[in-house]
Amino acid sequence: MDLEIKKNITSNWFKLLQNIICNDIINIENKKVKFKSTTWKKNRKKNEGGGEFRILENGKIFEKVGVNFSKVEGTFSNKFKKSIPGASKNPNFWASGISIVMHMKNPHIPAMHFNTRYICTDHEWFGGGIDFTQAIKDEIEKKQFHRTLKRMCNRHNKNYYKKYKKWCDEYFYLPHRKETRGIGGIFFDYKKNNFEKDFKFIRDVGVTFQLLFNSIISKKFKKKWSTKEKNLQYIKRGKYVEFNLLYDRGTKFGLQTGGNVEGIMMSLPPIAKWN
Amino acid sequence: MDLEIKKNITSNWFKLLQNIICNDIINIENKKVKFKSTTWKKNRKKNEGGGEFRILENGKIFEKVGVNFSKVEGTFSNKFKKSIPGASKNPNFWASGISIVMHMKNPHIPAMHFNTRYICTDHEWFGGGIDFTQAIKDEIEKKQFHRTLKRMCNRHNKNYYKKYKKWCDEYFYLPHRKETRGIGGIFFDYKKNNFEKDFKFIRDVGVTFQLLFNSIISKKFKKKWSTKEKNLQYIKRGKYVEFNLLYDRGTKFGLQTGGNVEGIMMSLPPIAKWN
Repeated sequence: MDLEIKKNITSNWFKLLQNIICNDIINIENKKVKFKSTTWKKNRKKNEGGGEFRILENGKIFEKVGVNFSKVEGTFSNKFKKSIPGASKNPNFWASGISIVMHMKNPHIPAMHFNTRYICTDHEWFGGGIDFTQAIKDEIEKKQFHRTLKRMCNRHNKNYYKKYKKWCDEYFYLPHRKETRGIGGIFFDYKKNNFEKDFKFIRDVGVTFQLLFNSIISKKFKKKWSTKEKNLQYIKRGKYVEFNLLYDRGTKFGLQTGGNVEGIMMSLPPIAKWN
Repeated sequence: MDLEIKKNITSNWFKLLQNIICNDIINIENKKVKFKSTTWKKNRKKNEGGGEFRILENGKIFEKVGVNFSKVEGTFSNKFKKSIPGASKNPNFWASGISIVMHMKNPHIPAMHFNTRYICTDHEWFGGGIDFTQAIKDEIEKKQFHRTLKRMCNRHNKNYYKKYKKWCDEYFYLPHRKETRGIGGIFFDYKKNNFEKDFKFIRDVGVTFQLLFNSIISKKFKKKWSTKEKNLQYIKRGKYVEFNLLYDRGTKFGLQTGGNVEGIMMSLPPIAKWN
């Protein structure tokens, strides 16, 4: 398949998914709040693409949720290109993706993170993942979450779940705290097998995320919580911030490649505490 | 002068200054709150020193203040030693310092940061600085602050102020935000001239910081503030967190050399917001 077609197919899917998920969120909020949308261009002079990020704050259910779509191209810096597959000789890249972070009002509902992307250098590959962060332990929810992910992975390849779960645990680890950021999930990168198969998997990751957040929110949004529990959530969010700023590749990639700062920092919680 | 004597003199001064400043803070709070003190050892098995950090939270004036003393030794990792002067051949180091961050309840009072340290590898040098971060602009305060620093620097060397002010502006810069963290101040590192002279300067930096925070707090602590102004402070603190986790050398040094995590993260504000 022609590369340009692949780029169109993937970026159109990410854009569509942005609309689908934003629509779900608005429905969960009973249509009483709106997203603030910002479109941006990577480069004012050259046509290097850009994106649209949507942020909703102070909902009844969502304290802050960001739904970020981007489609950019450009040239990696000399320093950065060494760490990117297929970029050492030719530093040009094209990348499109969708990235979502949900910070919930109710501390019983986990913070939910989802991302899928397609990147082209001299190589082409998919990356992404789903991972949730509970402020208050819920072992049953954790089990169900992993069971859903496992079932989804198994539809595509019996080896995926084990491999991507492990990758997630290793990636979302805070060495200085000696703890993981959340309850895990799946994480994958440099995924290049067969475009059709990979893209089917990528869509399933998106649709499964949609299923997961709708189901978890509908189960838990009425559950009562105390100030003490809210405080646990603020503290947990502090570590979320630490991870995103100290270790997260997406943050580094964005800042290094001239991405939109507000869009990159969108993943940060509305309020966090350190004690 | 024997190196062991220099180590004793510097670490004793840092420890003394910790006591002096904590005492001032307790007095500002009318003796109604106490510091929580934590002493820690770098290595349970080997004697590699450690430190004591003191944190006071929820005062009437100080929302959170950390006063951190440490005296450690050890061996730099292979990766890290290349970036440290005098450590490429012999990776052993000794380091002692005091570091203070004050996050104030009243958003009109700036967040205040001070640090001095003495580090020995095959080289020996002093480093440190003073820099303040206003959430609400106050040009007069900013001018007076810089005038005090300039006068202090001039007592030691007519070139210091210009040089160290510039270094501070460059160091405390957030490239992704295209703004400085605060209103500047002074910053210096790898300072090695003459031990006696340098140490005199280091003490003056400490004493000048003491003078500055006492004077600014006494002028401003009664000034009224609104929720909107408090919110500006929370947002400014979000950028403070971004700087400390994305760029700060002290944070990296601490995390890389097995420092105490709570002590390192002490600089983070009690509450921060992103919008």
